[in-house]
Amino acid sequence: MKKAIKIGLFGFGCVGQGLYDVLHNAPGFRAEIVRIVVKNRDKPRKLPADRFAYTPDAILDHPDINLVVELIDDPEAAYRLVKAALQRGKNVVTANKKMLALHLEELVDLQAQTGTALLYEAACCGSIPIIRTLEEYYNHELLHAFSGIFNGSSNYILTKIFEEGLPYAEALAQAQQLGFAESDPTLDVGGFDATYKLCILTAHAYGLFVQPDEVLRFGIAHLGADDVQYAREKGYRIKLVCQSHKLDDQRVALTVMPQFVRPDSLLYQIENEYNGVVVEAAFSEKQFFQGKGAGGHPTGSAVLSDIAACSYNYHYEYKKRSQRPENFHHSQAVELEVYISADREADLEDLPGLDVRERYMSATRHYLIAGVRYETLLALQPQLTARGLFVACTPTAPVALPVAASAAVARA
Amino acid sequence: MKKAIKIGLFGFGCVGQGLYDVLHNAPGFRAEIVRIVVKNRDKPRKLPADRFAYTPDAILDHPDINLVVELIDDPEAAYRLVKAALQRGKNVVTANKKMLALHLEELVDLQAQTGTALLYEAACCGSIPIIRTLEEYYNHELLHAFSGIFNGSSNYILTKIFEEGLPYAEALAQAQQLGFAESDPTLDVGGFDATYKLCILTAHAYGLFVQPDEVLRFGIAHLGADDVQYAREKGYRIKLVCQSHKLDDQRVALTVMPQFVRPDSLLYQIENEYNGVVVEAAFSEKQFFQGKGAGGHPTGSAVLSDIAACSYNYHYEYKKRSQRPENFHHSQAVELEVYISADREADLEDLPGLDVRERYMSATRHYLIAGVRYETLLALQPQLTARGLFVACTPTAPVALPVAASAAVARA
Repeated sequence: MKKAIKIGLFGFGCVGQGLYDVLHNAPGFRAEIVRIVVKNRDKPRKLPADRFAYTPDAILDHPDINLVVELIDDPEAAYRLVKAALQRGKNVVTANKKMLALHLEELVDLQAQTGTALLYEAACCGSIPIIRTLEEYYNHELLHAFSGIFNGSSNYILTKIFEEGLPYAEALAQAQQLGFAESDPTLDVGGFDATYKLCILTAHAYGLFVQPDEVLRFGIAHLGADDVQYAREKGYRIKLVCQSHKLDDQRVALTVMPQFVRPDSLLYQIENEYNGVVVEAAFSEKQFFQGKGAGGHPTGSAVLSDIAACSYNYHYEYKKRSQRPENFHHSQAVELEVYISADREADLEDLPGLDVRERYMSATRHYLIAGVRYETLLALQPQLTARGLFVACTPTAPVALPVAASAAVARA
Repeated sequence: MKKAIKIGLFGFGCVGQGLYDVLHNAPGFRAEIVRIVVKNRDKPRKLPADRFAYTPDAILDHPDINLVVELIDDPEAAYRLVKAALQRGKNVVTANKKMLALHLEELVDLQAQTGTALLYEAACCGSIPIIRTLEEYYNHELLHAFSGIFNGSSNYILTKIFEEGLPYAEALAQAQQLGFAESDPTLDVGGFDATYKLCILTAHAYGLFVQPDEVLRFGIAHLGADDVQYAREKGYRIKLVCQSHKLDDQRVALTVMPQFVRPDSLLYQIENEYNGVVVEAAFSEKQFFQGKGAGGHPTGSAVLSDIAACSYNYHYEYKKRSQRPENFHHSQAVELEVYISADREADLEDLPGLDVRERYMSATRHYLIAGVRYETLLALQPQLTARGLFVACTPTAPVALPVAASAAVARA
């Protein structure tokens, strides 16, 4: 049953090197890295130059390589490599969230057609075995919802701001220095990275493929000292929270937004680069998973677990995809309660569709709290972001609305 | 690859009925319960009498049944049934912690000889997929330690005592009424149930089979109002904590004891019938899992995940067993710091081998805090229990001692 693993590795950055370390310290594990392909010939590296090659074909055309591990940065290049590898009958392990989120349905189909395996535990929540758990443990459970903190870098930044009072820019610089942040920090602090993970997990949780740009998404880049102060006064923390919850048998709603979190929430205690996932299901009820969500070694460890799984021909089954009702879809029939803050009062004007419930103004600080429909907020998103406003959910979870009732909110 | 699952079910108590509910609500899952064998012909049951049979052979000799699900109470009867089923080439799913802990090594060997699968996710920590995670995710990781709250019933009791100020007996009665407690509550409150789980998980975490009676074990039955008061004054909670940590490459130490837990511990927040597990490994670092540890539905859900796994020929591999160093063993070379309390001062006398560091006496309350070697405490255990003393670890984790240094503690 067991086959020898011959690896072709694309990329030798933080995670690639982490994998190399983990692989060389795994007792009794036999997998050989046959080739490493990198882009830049001149970068100094900690392995001798003869371990590296510089063209994809050095791996894709290598007859002995039966497993491609893809750990490069560029999602479009990664997509071409992964597709080419699957088409040549090679299994693939990847950690590329963006590439997966954008092309998942096609790659899942390609994998089925070519009889290969595409595994990507490291793409979601670092070392937490959440995809494996959704696949194997919840494959026949009635899953109601999952939520969590999926981006270690922005959580690290939020922790430093809350615990040590660091200004935003300094906290971000620290996260980058520690290798927690993506090379483009907007991916982290803008909530994009978290959204990719949410979309990937939604495929496993409900068998539904949602494109990232359909998801309501706000980041933490516009968090100000006044917002931190507001949270402190209420006894809250601010976390970048992903939610994916079923409204009924037909509909699921996805959001990625900063949220004020109460001390009794399981997400409140998650600090620094840790990630956490809460899964709610009919019979197992509430489960919680916490682990390091960023860093070369935790991620390398997740990649290793996928490599090990390949050695016994494991592949994801996406069982929920065949089980889901015909009209099951991503729905916007949700009302949220949001906090929106601005430096200038004028920036809080002309925002249609808000059911304003509280409004605060002082010389330097302005915020409002309002009910708003998902689709209204999605439409406002570019405008709110352009104005540099900070938008967060109140601790009240999004509420599913029958279409008639939610129309009233839209008119407000 | 997929085969039709024909189930023979032994037992129709809390978990058996929970499984029945879960199985009949799992969308798209095809498994048929062909026979249910129960002991007592006269008990009223919620299914018609013709669904039941009363002799083991009705399942064991049934040619269509390819999976035996064993959910009875009596561990020795369960052991005979499981053995007989494996010998007849039938796969087995069981939730019987005691039976597994006492006979695990033999059953693992029997499973390998007969080419069958013996799965038991529901035996440890209810709905938390901890065995599967240790097996598949940590199979090549250098695991340093795991610890946690493994008994939902005693944790429920401790929560009611701390949160609602209930007396011990009343909290126990509530747990029994809710179906969280074993039919013999000593198994829960005496720490036996937790010890069985600790031994089972140790087999998967390190490949080591330890008999439950080799494990230092204290329960919560002698917890008094003064001990709760002491914990409150210090800002602690008391939890029944299982620990299994590697002292070095050769040795692992196992303990099951009440422990004073600080608010910054991941175990502090685990309330009611929830269980929690912390896993510490070289590369994935600290991971935390939390979920319901008792109740028919959460446990039934874990049993279902095993049944689903059987349908694709999954079996545990116990990889760490072949990887472990030759002399790897359960070691007692550990010093603990313990709190021991008594109603009568005299009961704290004549306890040899204690390095007493604090002593408190009043008209009604007596306690001491002392360093003590593992083996010394193991030897004192019957005497301490006979005297009705409450014994708990301080928040200081057990400390590995080189044998020379620990001998000094023994002489103290």
